[in-house]
Amino acid sequence: MKPGPARVLAALRRAGGRTCSGASLSSEQGVSRAQVWKDVESLRAQGYTIEATPSDGYRLAAVPDLLLPEEIDAGLETRWLARDLRWLETTDSTNRVALDLARAGAAHGTTVVAEAQTAGRGRLGRSFFSPPRKNYYGSSVLRPRLLTAEAPPWILASAVAVAEAVEQTVGDSGAVEIKWPNDVLLGGLKTSGILMELSAEATHVVFLVLGIGVNLNVDRRDFPEEFRATATSLSSHCGRKIDRIAFAQRLYNALERTLDTCAERGFEALRPRFEARFRMRGRPLTVVELDGARQSGVAEGVAADGALLLRRDDGSLVRVVAGDVTIAKENP
Amino acid sequence: MKPGPARVLAALRRAGGRTCSGASLSSEQGVSRAQVWKDVESLRAQGYTIEATPSDGYRLAAVPDLLLPEEIDAGLETRWLARDLRWLETTDSTNRVALDLARAGAAHGTTVVAEAQTAGRGRLGRSFFSPPRKNYYGSSVLRPRLLTAEAPPWILASAVAVAEAVEQTVGDSGAVEIKWPNDVLLGGLKTSGILMELSAEATHVVFLVLGIGVNLNVDRRDFPEEFRATATSLSSHCGRKIDRIAFAQRLYNALERTLDTCAERGFEALRPRFEARFRMRGRPLTVVELDGARQSGVAEGVAADGALLLRRDDGSLVRVVAGDVTIAKENP
Repeated sequence: MKPGPARVLAALRRAGGRTCSGASLSSEQGVSRAQVWKDVESLRAQGYTIEATPSDGYRLAAVPDLLLPEEIDAGLETRWLARDLRWLETTDSTNRVALDLARAGAAHGTTVVAEAQTAGRGRLGRSFFSPPRKNYYGSSVLRPRLLTAEAPPWILASAVAVAEAVEQTVGDSGAVEIKWPNDVLLGGLKTSGILMELSAEATHVVFLVLGIGVNLNVDRRDFPEEFRATATSLSSHCGRKIDRIAFAQRLYNALERTLDTCAERGFEALRPRFEARFRMRGRPLTVVELDGARQSGVAEGVAADGALLLRRDDGSLVRVVAGDVTIAKENP
Repeated sequence: MKPGPARVLAALRRAGGRTCSGASLSSEQGVSRAQVWKDVESLRAQGYTIEATPSDGYRLAAVPDLLLPEEIDAGLETRWLARDLRWLETTDSTNRVALDLARAGAAHGTTVVAEAQTAGRGRLGRSFFSPPRKNYYGSSVLRPRLLTAEAPPWILASAVAVAEAVEQTVGDSGAVEIKWPNDVLLGGLKTSGILMELSAEATHVVFLVLGIGVNLNVDRRDFPEEFRATATSLSSHCGRKIDRIAFAQRLYNALERTLDTCAERGFEALRPRFEARFRMRGRPLTVVELDGARQSGVAEGVAADGALLLRRDDGSLVRVVAGDVTIAKENP
C-alpha cells in the first residue's frame, strides 16, 4: 500500500468507526483535500468500504475480507515473523515465491501470503486445493542457525503451532489432532498442509521455506472428489464463518513462539505439545516409506528427532523418518 | 556440438592421426565435400587443429585444451555421471548454473563444467579462485533417494573420489591427504574445493548439487595473496602440465563409483578409504563451529555419519558436525 492511502487508513482506524472530516485529514497529513479524496478512492479500490458525506467527512465502515498486510499487521505480536509480509491476489505457489525471495536474500521471517494458488503444492509432490479468498495460504523464509540433520523436526514443530492456532479459532481443542508428521485434523479430517523445503550446504541449513495452507472457509462439499472424504475446513466443522485475518494473526503469533523454542531448545522441548495432540498413539498403523517399503505396528510416539516410533508385532521398535501413514480401521 | 562437425570429428578420431580424404568423408556421411569443409572450419573455430591438404584430405593434429564434452565423453566409463555434460567458456558459478538446472528438472548426473568462474564459491560463503583454462570447475546434479539427515557425509564421500583422482594423476598417493571435511591436500597444501548444496523437503532430499574445483595447471605463484601460503596445484606439485581432460575422466569415473557405494551402503562403507587419507588422526586440532564456539582436542577419526571425533584434554570424546579446522603446529 502506498504511504498516502496507508496514512488515511490509519487515521480512519484510529477514529474507530467515527467520521473524520476531510479538512482534519487534510491538515493532519499536510496534503490537499483532493489528495485525501484520491487516497480514499485508492482504499476503496482495494476493497475497503468507506462512507463519505460532503458535510461530515469519511468513515471506515468495513475492511475487505483479504489477507492484507495492513490488516494482519494491526494485530500481530511477533518480533520477526511476517513483519515483512507480501500479499498476492493469486500465484502458482507461495512456496515457489518464497524460495525465489530466499535465494535473492530475503530476511528471516519474510512471508508471502496469497488469496489463491493455481498450483498449490503439498508434501511428496501432491497438490493442495487452493480456491480464492476462502482459506489461508502462506510461506515464510526462515534462517535459523541449524545443522542439516536437525531440520526435519521443524516440520513437527510447525504442526504444533498450526494445531494451536486452529484450537484457538474453533474453541474445541478436543477435536484437534496431529497426524504424523504434520497434518492437523479436525474430527479426524484434514484441515491443513505443511510443506517445508530447505536449502543447505552439506552440513548446515542456509534457509528453510515453510509453507502452510489451512482450510478456513471453503465448504467441504466444494473439495475436489479426491479430497472430499478426508478433508474439512474450520467453517464446515464449526458451522460459522472464520475471520481469516484473525486466524493469520494467531498463526503467526503461535508459530514465532514455537519456532523460537525449537531453535533455542530443540524439538525435544516441544515434544509434549506434539504428543498431547498425537492421537495415533496405541493405534495400529501402516507407513509406506519413500522407497515403497511398508512398516506396520502400533504407534508409540515420536522420538526427539521427530521420527515416528512403531512397535512391531515381534516386539521390536522401529523408527520411521519419512513416509506416509495410514491408520488401520479399528473394527474392520 | 552440431551433428555434422561431431561426425567429422568422430571419423578423424577413428583414423587415429592418419589423413582422411575429403571424398571418403563426404561419401561416408552422405554430404557434399563443401559441407565437409564447413564442418572442418567449425571444428577449427572450436580449437581443433586440423591439417588439410587439397590432395590428401584432413588430419586431426591436436585437440583443444578445453573441457569439451566430446573430448571427455571419449574416455568416460560412467553410466549416469556427466553423460549429460554442459560446457561453458565462463560463468559466475557452476553451482549456480547446476542449481538452476536442478530446479528445472535436470536428471541425475547432469553436469556443468566451465573453463572459468567469475564468482566461484566455496564452503561457508568463501570464494574459490577460478582463473580461465587452467583448472577443473564443475557441478553435478544428483538425485539419490536419501533422507535429509543422511546427506552430510556425501561431502566426505566426494572428497574420497577427488583424492583418488588426484592420486591417479600425480602418481604419488603418499602426498595426498584429506582435511576434514572435504579439502584434498597435496604436500599439506590445498588443491581442491567441494561445495555441496542440497534442496530437501523436510525429511528427504529432492536434489543435491555437488560442485568440485581442483587446481590443476594454475601456477601456485599466481594465487591471490590470501591463498598463496596454503594452496597449490597438481602441476606445481609435479612440475609438469596436467592433462585436464584425462583428469575430468578420472574424476567422474571415481566419483560415480564412490557415490553409488554411498547410496547403496552408506558412508560407513567408504569410511576406510576416507580414514586412510585422513592424516589428521592423532594430531591436535582446533575447530571453529558455525556459532563461533571453539573445540580443541586430538583427532580420533570420523563417525559413520561423517562427524569429526575429537578427544579432549579431559578424556571426553566430542563430535563436530560442521565447522572449520585448524591443525595446530606440531612444534610451535
